[in-house]
Amino acid sequence: MQPTSGRILAISGSLQSRSANTALVRLAASLADQCTDVDIFDTLHQLPYFNPELDVEPAPRAVADLRARVGAAEAVLIASPEYAHEMPGVLKNALDWLVSSGELYGKPVAILCAAPGPERGMYVRQALERTLDAEGARVVVSTTVTVPPSQRNSQRSAEVVQVVSAALRALAGNADGCVDALPRRSA
Amino acid sequence: MQPTSGRILAISGSLQSRSANTALVRLAASLADQCTDVDIFDTLHQLPYFNPELDVEPAPRAVADLRARVGAAEAVLIASPEYAHEMPGVLKNALDWLVSSGELYGKPVAILCAAPGPERGMYVRQALERTLDAEGARVVVSTTVTVPPSQRNSQRSAEVVQVVSAALRALAGNADGCVDALPRRSA
Repeated sequence: MQPTSGRILAISGSLQSRSANTALVRLAASLADQCTDVDIFDTLHQLPYFNPELDVEPAPRAVADLRARVGAAEAVLIASPEYAHEMPGVLKNALDWLVSSGELYGKPVAILCAAPGPERGMYVRQALERTLDAEGARVVVSTTVTVPPSQRNSQRSAEVVQVVSAALRALAGNADGCVDALPRRSA
Repeated sequence: MQPTSGRILAISGSLQSRSANTALVRLAASLADQCTDVDIFDTLHQLPYFNPELDVEPAPRAVADLRARVGAAEAVLIASPEYAHEMPGVLKNALDWLVSSGELYGKPVAILCAAPGPERGMYVRQALERTLDAEGARVVVSTTVTVPPSQRNSQRSAEVVQVVSAALRALAGNADGCVDALPRRSA
């Protein structure tokens, strides 16, 4: 994998205010703060439902915003819960809007899924891998992040920081060594 | 499979007005007209995006309507396009709202996918099978319906009528022999 440099767009697949996945996105932004620009896209719910008849110029404002921000990013981080063995509809709807415009093509993407155990989240990750592959993205990380329910609101455990740091290292450039200095999993 | 009798709820996964899948739903309603009550649910786009925080009593009006109509149905027919190797976000969002309330549990469901060739539609059918299984539904039919682009607006070919009729037979009761009298594929 060829690492890239520059802005990372980070998206949570959950609209829940106390979502463990949204917390991962915020953790990524805070960890990367000294190294790279992380743009948190938190307006999935403002997108209209995808309809090929609306997919004309000018695109709906929220769609144009999504496309511009994915287009401006050099990499994308997605943290998503699993609903009924698939990704949330609200997240898939956003990805539906990017099919024709192609902003994900060739772009490195990291998939994280905060879940109560390491055996969880397989289905949502596979679903995201399928769709992102269909849109030409390069999935460079796909992993479940174990967040015990008791720790949902304090996700700065060393383990979680290490996993998110590894995702950032896989996505972000490292001209100044900053991202590379993020915590690593001990051998 | 134990056939059921009574109302079938029919849902198209596409919001496109000239959708081949919406045409399948309408064809199912017209074929079943003499035999069983087909309720076409065509307001997927009025549902809010699923958010666990909104999933409380009283449910949002559009969610309550979806749940009441799925609950009142004895079987469900879904016809959906495939977007980026998965189901459309708007359709998954509706299924997300049915997880906690459980109206799909034990219910027979037929999955159709209108596509330009028989090799298409596999991913969306598999995605629907996974999610419906996770919600406890019984998938009794899952098939691609070949609709050449030239026939998108005239889907009453003998082949298409046979496939939709077979789905109705699998879903609907047949006390008076009416559904059973629908066209069959010739041997």
